Amino acid sequence: MRKTVGRITIKDVAEAAGVSVGTASRVINNKATVRPEIRSAVLSAIDRLDYQPNAVAQSMRRRSTQLVGCIIREINIPALAAFVRAAHDELDQAGYSLVISNSEGRRAREEELIHRFGRLQSDGMLLGPYTPVDPAYEKLLRGFGAPIVLFDRNEPEWADAVAADHAGSIDRATSRLLDLGHRRIAILTGNPLLFPAAERIRGYRRAFQRAGLAVDESLVRGTGFLAAEGFRNASSLLASAAPPTALISGGIDMLPGVLRAIRVRGLSIPDDISVVGSGDSELAELHTPPISVERWDMAETGRTAALLLLRRIGGERDTPPEHVLLPAEFVERASLAPPRQS
Amino acid sequence: MRKTVGRITIKDVAEAAGVSVGTASRVINNKATVRPEIRSAVLSAIDRLDYQPNAVAQSMRRRSTQLVGCIIREINIPALAAFVRAAHDELDQAGYSLVISNSEGRRAREEELIHRFGRLQSDGMLLGPYTPVDPAYEKLLRGFGAPIVLFDRNEPEWADAVAADHAGSIDRATSRLLDLGHRRIAILTGNPLLFPAAERIRGYRRAFQRAGLAVDESLVRGTGFLAAEGFRNASSLLASAAPPTALISGGIDMLPGVLRAIRVRGLSIPDDISVVGSGDSELAELHTPPISVERWDMAETGRTAALLLLRRIGGERDTPPEHVLLPAEFVERASLAPPRQS
Repeated sequence: MRKTVGRITIKDVAEAAGVSVGTASRVINNKATVRPEIRSAVLSAIDRLDYQPNAVAQSMRRRSTQLVGCIIREINIPALAAFVRAAHDELDQAGYSLVISNSEGRRAREEELIHRFGRLQSDGMLLGPYTPVDPAYEKLLRGFGAPIVLFDRNEPEWADAVAADHAGSIDRATSRLLDLGHRRIAILTGNPLLFPAAERIRGYRRAFQRAGLAVDESLVRGTGFLAAEGFRNASSLLASAAPPTALISGGIDMLPGVLRAIRVRGLSIPDDISVVGSGDSELAELHTPPISVERWDMAETGRTAALLLLRRIGGERDTPPEHVLLPAEFVERASLAPPRQS
Repeated sequence: MRKTVGRITIKDVAEAAGVSVGTASRVINNKATVRPEIRSAVLSAIDRLDYQPNAVAQSMRRRSTQLVGCIIREINIPALAAFVRAAHDELDQAGYSLVISNSEGRRAREEELIHRFGRLQSDGMLLGPYTPVDPAYEKLLRGFGAPIVLFDRNEPEWADAVAADHAGSIDRATSRLLDLGHRRIAILTGNPLLFPAAERIRGYRRAFQRAGLAVDESLVRGTGFLAAEGFRNASSLLASAAPPTALISGGIDMLPGVLRAIRVRGLSIPDDISVVGSGDSELAELHTPPISVERWDMAETGRTAALLLLRRIGGERDTPPEHVLLPAEFVERASLAPPRQS
């Protein structure tokens, strides 16, 4: 009775038991709606054929792979790793495995990975695009065929999303710098078409506006979230004729670049320049002096994203999209001081 | 001709074309060994039935899922994230996706994940066990059914492995501390039954032996790689009647804990205590003062592990296991000074 070539399938089992594939499947999945004599015929066929269901075959029947795709810029950015860790733990508990791919922030990679996770029949996807979502991109996401949850993004609007209140925390940071007497406050962040950059700049402007002060547009740099961008922008600003007296580093991976630029120029924090980072880190906490930061809970972001996704995977498809905004606080440390008298 | 229930399978295509499943498969996979008239019969059947192969179905035929499992302690340890990043890039280029799961260093989790990656029919696995490999564990790995590559481990011996020369780098670090006049040098690391801990302690002992000096066993702590263990061990040693004058932090995630312990006690580096870390990091580099480290290339480790795995997945199964030892250097920074005269 053993097939000599190829894997024994549920069809073989059904044939041997003289039942339909659906009935064999109900027995294998232990449904109660099968008559005892049918059940024993199927179990006996399973035994004779040495049929072994496996995860891939089961997933084809269930149309579920228990895989969740996660597209992040780079896993080796500590804040993203903390996000992934928390999402992993939540999904793992529910029996899902996480397929993690780095997009390097490039649109072509993001598109390729969305296609790949589609081919893998992922049950869902966690995504924080680094390219603004235009109609073509939105269509690609719409065609993905499984639930999507965005992290630290708010587009497309029809997807569930979890983000942090960067506007609030950077508003507070900017206000504090203004109170200390700073006027030349630079903010370095990513593409202003992306949520976290837009929000940080919004908070920054709001603080200036509340203080009745004008923003010097040359001090607003929305060119990229990378450490290398932080280094480049901080270096050029610090070398300018009228350098800033305070720097807000508006990206989770940017602080090392900004600190290197300050060190290279031989400047001292906070005597020569005050510094605020985005996202807490061991570097910010254990630096001398410790660096003030806008802080939000990356683990909570990951957990929330996973829970939103599991809810959709679990079948809740028709309720309106949920956009969760997690609080972000401003943590003041010794990296702030009044500007040097010039 | 369209089936109304269930997915159209390659069997349906073969039946409709009047050929065997193997022949249909050869056409779909574009093999050259199919006669033109057969090819056109199969293509016509595919067209009539609207047959759409998908990744899961293809993987069942090919017996390949294009998935590689990776079990690490915690993705949010920067050095492990760098390893994963590099392995990801190499595997991605070859068309493989990486399923990453955190073991938290617990054996039960490791076992569960090995089973899970087996059920997912992963094409291979990257693994750095945190429990010493005993016969039961070795049997579990042997039954995995796909190639395994170990990172920073050397057991089981039959698996390919890539590790760093911790003995060499810690030998050099210890020698340098001895040359500076230190005698009470503590080494904090993980379970000495695991490769990186065993090797670090071996290098440490070798340096003492070469100098003709005895090791004070109370200064050798092999209790765990965690930052919390670093904090606990460093705190208790620094509070002892005869505290060490130098500390070697022998784990990639341990330095933050050791630095916190030193800070909590109000000690100054290097005046009160010299410090050596394991694995370079932004924290070590940008700390004041910068921390000396044993350094090896985590990205190279990841790339090498991925390449070893791809070679086995590609069919090279019968050549002897390859154990690659990557160099590790000792990078001296301002965290070292002669011991304070007591």
